[in-house]
Amino acid sequence: MNFPPPITRLIQHFRGLPGVGPRTATRFVFALLNKSEDELRAFGHTLVDFKHSIRTCKECFNISLQDPCEICSNQKRERTLLCIVARPQDIQAIEETREYNGLYHVLGGVLNPIDGVTPEQLRIKELLTRLEGEQKFQEIILALNLDIEGEATALYLAKLLKSRVPKVTRLARGLPQGADLEYADEVTLINALKGRRDI
Amino acid sequence: MNFPPPITRLIQHFRGLPGVGPRTATRFVFALLNKSEDELRAFGHTLVDFKHSIRTCKECFNISLQDPCEICSNQKRERTLLCIVARPQDIQAIEETREYNGLYHVLGGVLNPIDGVTPEQLRIKELLTRLEGEQKFQEIILALNLDIEGEATALYLAKLLKSRVPKVTRLARGLPQGADLEYADEVTLINALKGRRDI
Repeated sequence: MNFPPPITRLIQHFRGLPGVGPRTATRFVFALLNKSEDELRAFGHTLVDFKHSIRTCKECFNISLQDPCEICSNQKRERTLLCIVARPQDIQAIEETREYNGLYHVLGGVLNPIDGVTPEQLRIKELLTRLEGEQKFQEIILALNLDIEGEATALYLAKLLKSRVPKVTRLARGLPQGADLEYADEVTLINALKGRRDI
Repeated sequence: MNFPPPITRLIQHFRGLPGVGPRTATRFVFALLNKSEDELRAFGHTLVDFKHSIRTCKECFNISLQDPCEICSNQKRERTLLCIVARPQDIQAIEETREYNGLYHVLGGVLNPIDGVTPEQLRIKELLTRLEGEQKFQEIILALNLDIEGEATALYLAKLLKSRVPKVTRLARGLPQGADLEYADEVTLINALKGRRDI
């Protein structure tokens, strides 16, 4: 026996999502079988339509309902400070800290030669154009993941940007909140020692 | 900043799925942002429509495109053997073994007093009606999960069925394939010892 075709089809669609294997997808579909027709209709229509109203900001490449986005068009933001992130959802994470008040630039990924992501595929040309514009940035913060690809991209950008902007920084490296020294990995501990600060 | 409303709405829908928290839901939505309009339309329409063609078999309560389902209407199946499962997806798991050729009965869950699932909410009345029908079953196999609720339900059913059917069995308990004795839990080892077989 196999599942009826409509169920198999829906399972296939869910399997297209990141990290979803056949068992999780099946679990999702059986959970949905218990939802009302109204809920399923709302879910399905949101899925079909959600992308239509989403714009990509031509300034920073954040996603938004408007172009330029809420951040770029907000005159209260510090316009000499630019934070470079890989993806729009990274902006969300930084905004939630309420600690940053500058502008952003979304690269659209990180360098990854194995997957064929070269500098041409990232929004680096757009970044350089932006730096040459009227708006003079005083500092660029590289806020990329601390994995191999993120680090390589940060080094690449640092080299490229140092001659163009007075200050290029990256996020502090060290022990995360709640860390246990005994279980911290070696690289994190080295970074925490090297970056030690007066208390 | 928050995500634009269409994205937030879609995140909410995904959070209704089992085991999906806000981060996973957000990840799903951003992955979908990269899909084509056609793919999203196909996904959304499948979601809206998949339930329409799904029937519940009035014999065994399996899900199917037809009623009675493929299994109940298959005359080659052993009709004196009945396997009781909690959910339709359990039938799928058993069918994939190709080791069982009898009929099924889907309870629709297991007894769970804390969540308010009493015998009346399961398809036990329908099971008893089925046992009184023309079809005389020689054996009933209880194929329920080995967690507390599954075990309690199996014991409840065994008591109820023993006077009505010549033979009531449950799935063997013991070490799973690939098991390492050192890491086997105590209950599993006890069951494996008690159930030891000639080799």
